[in-house]
Amino acid sequence: MVNGMKVAVNGYGTIGKRIADAVIMQNDLQLSGVSKVTPDYEALILNKIGTNLYVPEQNIKKFEDAGITVSGTIPEMVNSCDIIVDATPGGYGTKYKELYQSAGKPAVFQGGEDANMVDLSFCAMCNYELVSGKKYVRVVSCNTTGILRTIYSLRSFGIKNVQVDIIRRAADPREIKKGPINSITLDPVESPSHHANDVKSVMPDLKIVTRAAIVPTTLMHLHQMTIKFDRKTEKIEVINALLKTPRIVLLSSNSGVHSTAEIMEIARDLGRKRADLPEVAVFEGSINADGDTVLLSYAVHQESIVVPENIDAIRAIQGKVTKDDSIKITDTAMGIKRGYLI
Amino acid sequence: MVNGMKVAVNGYGTIGKRIADAVIMQNDLQLSGVSKVTPDYEALILNKIGTNLYVPEQNIKKFEDAGITVSGTIPEMVNSCDIIVDATPGGYGTKYKELYQSAGKPAVFQGGEDANMVDLSFCAMCNYELVSGKKYVRVVSCNTTGILRTIYSLRSFGIKNVQVDIIRRAADPREIKKGPINSITLDPVESPSHHANDVKSVMPDLKIVTRAAIVPTTLMHLHQMTIKFDRKTEKIEVINALLKTPRIVLLSSNSGVHSTAEIMEIARDLGRKRADLPEVAVFEGSINADGDTVLLSYAVHQESIVVPENIDAIRAIQGKVTKDDSIKITDTAMGIKRGYLI
Repeated sequence: MVNGMKVAVNGYGTIGKRIADAVIMQNDLQLSGVSKVTPDYEALILNKIGTNLYVPEQNIKKFEDAGITVSGTIPEMVNSCDIIVDATPGGYGTKYKELYQSAGKPAVFQGGEDANMVDLSFCAMCNYELVSGKKYVRVVSCNTTGILRTIYSLRSFGIKNVQVDIIRRAADPREIKKGPINSITLDPVESPSHHANDVKSVMPDLKIVTRAAIVPTTLMHLHQMTIKFDRKTEKIEVINALLKTPRIVLLSSNSGVHSTAEIMEIARDLGRKRADLPEVAVFEGSINADGDTVLLSYAVHQESIVVPENIDAIRAIQGKVTKDDSIKITDTAMGIKRGYLI
Repeated sequence: MVNGMKVAVNGYGTIGKRIADAVIMQNDLQLSGVSKVTPDYEALILNKIGTNLYVPEQNIKKFEDAGITVSGTIPEMVNSCDIIVDATPGGYGTKYKELYQSAGKPAVFQGGEDANMVDLSFCAMCNYELVSGKKYVRVVSCNTTGILRTIYSLRSFGIKNVQVDIIRRAADPREIKKGPINSITLDPVESPSHHANDVKSVMPDLKIVTRAAIVPTTLMHLHQMTIKFDRKTEKIEVINALLKTPRIVLLSSNSGVHSTAEIMEIARDLGRKRADLPEVAVFEGSINADGDTVLLSYAVHQESIVVPENIDAIRAIQGKVTKDDSIKITDTAMGIKRGYLI
C-alpha cells in the first residue's frame, strides 16, 4: 500500500532485522529505512536487498570504505519516517528518545529500556487499547512477553499468584563473545528477578515472583511456571484455553518433543525464515493440574517473540485498527500460528 | 514432470529430509516416498505436508497409535520407486543393500557406509562421468566433500600434497544426546584420520594427510587446509579459481565474518530453508600464499553439503544428463551459489 505508514527501524541487530522484515510483510506499513553502526555482513545484505541504510554521520566514510552504499544519517532517517521502532542495544533507546522527540516522531522501544522512559509498557494481548493517545511505547522483553501471553490465556480461571523459574539461554546464535559457556549462573542471585516487575509494568495487579538462571545454550529460554488459581482447574481446561490463544502453540504429547533443540528443528523443517518461532511453545505433556495449582513448561524464542508485538505497537499508536484486527493482520502476514504446532 | 524418475528416500533424518526436499525441487525427479522408524515430530510433519511415509512392518501399529498415517512398508516403498537414496544411519545402508538388490533397484548411499560396499564413491565435480553403468554409488561424507570440492577447484595449479586439520562440530543442532559438551577430543588420536582415505576413494592419486578434533559446537565443521603446489601460486589466482567453482562461496574480507556462527546467521538472513548452506564457505582473508604453499580456512555445513551431491548421483546413475548440466540444474533448483556469498 503506497499510503502505508512509513516505519524506520533504528538498530539492525537480532531484533531490528526481524522487525524490518515483518514491517515489509504488512500491507498497511512500509519500511522507509534502517540504521546500522558497523559496516559488517548485515550491512552488505541490506545493500543486496535494496533497503535504505542510514548510519551515524561520523561512520559514513567507514561504510563507504567497505564498499557499502549509505542513504544518509540517522537524523535524516528519523525525519523521513512517520514512526520509529528503536531496536538499538539496551539503554541506547533512552539516549535516542531526545532525537525522536525533537523531530516530533512517535517511537516504539524494546524491553532493554527502562519502563519509566515511556508512556506505557506493551504486550498486544494485554493492553493494546491503552496505547490510544500515547506517543512512546515499550514492548516488554522476550521473557516477559512469554509470561504475559501465557497468563493472559489462563486469566479467566482467576489467578491467585504465579511463580516462574526462567532457564535462560546464554547468548543468541550469532553472538560469539558472550557466555557463560560452562556454568549455570543465577541471574541474579536475589529473587525476584527483574522479570516480575516487568510483568507488573503491564499487569500491575498480578501477584508474581520470578527467578532466573543462565545456561550455556543459544536456542531458546525455558519457563517453568506454577500458577495458583482461585478455583480447582482441570488439565483439559488449561489445554483448551491455550489452544485458542493467538501466538501460543502446543507441542503435542505424541510428538515426542522435549527440548528446545527439537522445537527449533521443527521451525527449520516448517521452513520458517531464520528458523524463527515467535509463538510461545507449550509442552502439552508438562501441564500438571492438581487442585487449584497448575504446572506448565514452555519455551520462548528470544530472537523473534517480540517481533509481532512491535508491529501491533505501531498500529496501536496509529490508533486506526482494533486489537483483535491488528493481531490477526500481523499473524496472518507473518504466518504465526495458534493451536498445535504440528 | 509426470514422467520424472521416482525417487524413494530410505531414512528421514538430518540428511534424508533435506534430500527429500531437494528431490521435490527438481523438475526431472519425483519423490515417491520416504521411510521412518520412529513416530516422532518429523513423522507428524510428513503427514502434514502429504509425503508418503513408509515404516518397518513391525512398527506400523506404533505409528497408527500415535495418530500418524502410514502408506506401507519399506519393501513396498522400494518396489514402488525407480531409485533409492539410502540416508539411514551409518552401517544400515549395507544391511538394506540386499533389499535393494533383490528388488533390482539402483541406490545412492551416504558416507557412513564402507567404500567397499559400492561400485564407486562419488563427488559430483570430481567423478560424475565414472558412474555411467554403475548401480550402487556412495556420496562421500560432508568433510570429504568439502575437501574434494576445494581441491578440485585448485587442481589446475598442480597439487603436490595436501594437509587438512579438521575441527569438527560435536553434534547436529537437533541432536540432544551427543557430545562432547566440554572437551576438545582428538578423533582419532592417530593420524591420518579416516578422511584422507575417504578423499582417496574419489581421488586415488592425491597425496593427502588429515587430522581431526571434535569441539563442543553444533553449527559447522572448520577445515584448516595447507596445499603445496607444483609451482609458486599467487593469492589472487586462488581467489579467482575459487570464485568460479560451483558450490564454493567466499566470505569477503570486508564482511568481517570470522566464525561459523556468523556464516549460519547469514544463511538465516538470506532466508535459506533450515538456514542451510550446502556450499563450501571459504574465508577470503584466510588465504595465505607463500611460494608454492597456500593456507586457507573454510567451513562445511555438515547437515546440507552432501544434499546436491545426492541429486547429481541420481542423475549420474540415470546416465541421461551430463555432469555440468546436472550440477547446473541442481544448483539452480536449490538456489546454490558460487562467488561471494554476500
